[in-house]
Amino acid sequence: MTDQRPELTTLVKRARDGDPRAVAKLITLVESNDPRLPELAAALAADTGTAQVIGLTGAPGVGKSTVTAELVRALRAAGRQRVGVLAVDPSSPFTGGAILGDRVRMQDHATDPGVYIRSMSSRGSLGGLAAATPQAVRVLEGAGCEVILVETVGVGQAEVAVASLADTTLVLLAPGLGDAIQAAKAGILEIADVFVVNKADRDGADATYHDIQGMIGLADRAPGQWRPQVVRAVATRPSGIDEILAAIDKHRDWLRTHDQLRRRREQRAAAEIEAIVLAGLRHRIEAVAALPGLAAAVAAGEQDPYTAAGAILTELGAARP
Amino acid sequence: MTDQRPELTTLVKRARDGDPRAVAKLITLVESNDPRLPELAAALAADTGTAQVIGLTGAPGVGKSTVTAELVRALRAAGRQRVGVLAVDPSSPFTGGAILGDRVRMQDHATDPGVYIRSMSSRGSLGGLAAATPQAVRVLEGAGCEVILVETVGVGQAEVAVASLADTTLVLLAPGLGDAIQAAKAGILEIADVFVVNKADRDGADATYHDIQGMIGLADRAPGQWRPQVVRAVATRPSGIDEILAAIDKHRDWLRTHDQLRRRREQRAAAEIEAIVLAGLRHRIEAVAALPGLAAAVAAGEQDPYTAAGAILTELGAARP
Repeated sequence: MTDQRPELTTLVKRARDGDPRAVAKLITLVESNDPRLPELAAALAADTGTAQVIGLTGAPGVGKSTVTAELVRALRAAGRQRVGVLAVDPSSPFTGGAILGDRVRMQDHATDPGVYIRSMSSRGSLGGLAAATPQAVRVLEGAGCEVILVETVGVGQAEVAVASLADTTLVLLAPGLGDAIQAAKAGILEIADVFVVNKADRDGADATYHDIQGMIGLADRAPGQWRPQVVRAVATRPSGIDEILAAIDKHRDWLRTHDQLRRRREQRAAAEIEAIVLAGLRHRIEAVAALPGLAAAVAAGEQDPYTAAGAILTELGAARP
Repeated sequence: MTDQRPELTTLVKRARDGDPRAVAKLITLVESNDPRLPELAAALAADTGTAQVIGLTGAPGVGKSTVTAELVRALRAAGRQRVGVLAVDPSSPFTGGAILGDRVRMQDHATDPGVYIRSMSSRGSLGGLAAATPQAVRVLEGAGCEVILVETVGVGQAEVAVASLADTTLVLLAPGLGDAIQAAKAGILEIADVFVVNKADRDGADATYHDIQGMIGLADRAPGQWRPQVVRAVATRPSGIDEILAAIDKHRDWLRTHDQLRRRREQRAAAEIEAIVLAGLRHRIEAVAALPGLAAAVAAGEQDPYTAAGAILTELGAARP
């Protein structure tokens, strides 16, 4: 125990000094829900809010990794000293293992010391992503990243929620994936600040573009509310990347002039606090000795789950220190 | 208030008598997190465990709805009196709206009074699906369904978790979607009791089949543990449907002879209880008056989120009745 505290302090210091291995180790601590996380969070608190956080989500196959890689390249070319990428894999709820796949393309940046790229899995719990992602963002902020891209597969609720907590959220679509309806079903229509119709040189790209414009036109929007931008891109070429960055800048200006940047970040902080509280409470619930017996009674139809939940709440209250 | 209690009792009675509109209304209550849910759960507790629950998951485009529709047809042809389908849409975490899309194909069964089909969205919270799906299953059990198919988009953690709580979980794949790696990333390899390689007449189907067989061969499995079956199908034709049902039966026999059916259902009940407890606690967290101030302090870097979470836990304890 005693020899681990200096190690954490050292890691934070080395990460601040720009050592990518220290950054990687700290994110591993976050990902594995290390018991020293509170200490790490305290050490990094002062770095909070220094970076621009951009969420990027979309169904498998729309080209998220390619767009991310090109955005990183463009941001570096525009003079950003350090750019971070967090690729949040839905990963296994059972083994927690992240498997390399489309990450391969990101290796282009592997030799650029101004870019930190990290795949992150969530080790099981449904609330895992919600709790871990903001901590990982904070590690990258502490390491001096000016911009942090958080890439998630935008189909599940957890992943959508994570992406939506960015300063600006990009939703990627591609023609021919039944996108418009899929997008609406996954709830990503509501979270998008900027839509990117990627693979815009393919058949059906115009239809996708107009479908999305149509949906934006039909959506309820209060006066003064942000109207999502739609940008066409062919990231493999690459084309449209500067237009995506321009749309992000435009949204950032809007956030600032409408005092929405602070509001978004406070929402993100509230969600982060809630996720930490719930993770702690989940452990307590699972430790309640009466749970297996109550579960057996519910499974057998002898008790209803709400009555059982009430009993757990009572136990939690009694067990509270 | 007083005039609603008789209505709920009446709805439950009408659902038991086979009125599909009563079933639909009860599932709407579940979906909208109606305050009468505890009362409904108590009324339905005795019906728990009467139906066989089959989970069906897979990425968009693998043909989940077609396979589901053909399974329903085959189950009915085999003499099942009543079959239920719950199509759990990832849906919007923001507006809760479910949009009709690939559900259309299921309308084939619209005139069969022995089939209940229901799309269900989750109204926002990440734990929504986990709490609502078992209640909706119970409504269908109460309405006399012998088999209930729960169909989810298997990319997000929440959806995977929901599907994995069935008696038997089918994971659908199709050639040419980069399935093997996608499947592993989404954690669905670990939850599958039966793999269905759908669209097996397409190029690449053999490769997908052998990839999955290879992954199953490599997976760690304790002696006596179930080895996932792999079935090829072309649901649009249809072919392979009887083979899917045979694999499901084989798994069910295995569950029974290994005392695993009871164990799975107790796990499902425990997850259900936990989801209800957490939903209640989430409301309490969001009602803590100090939360906005703590969120602002965390967003400004004046406080770390773990310290803030500790303050919330203290407040929750003080507020507890």
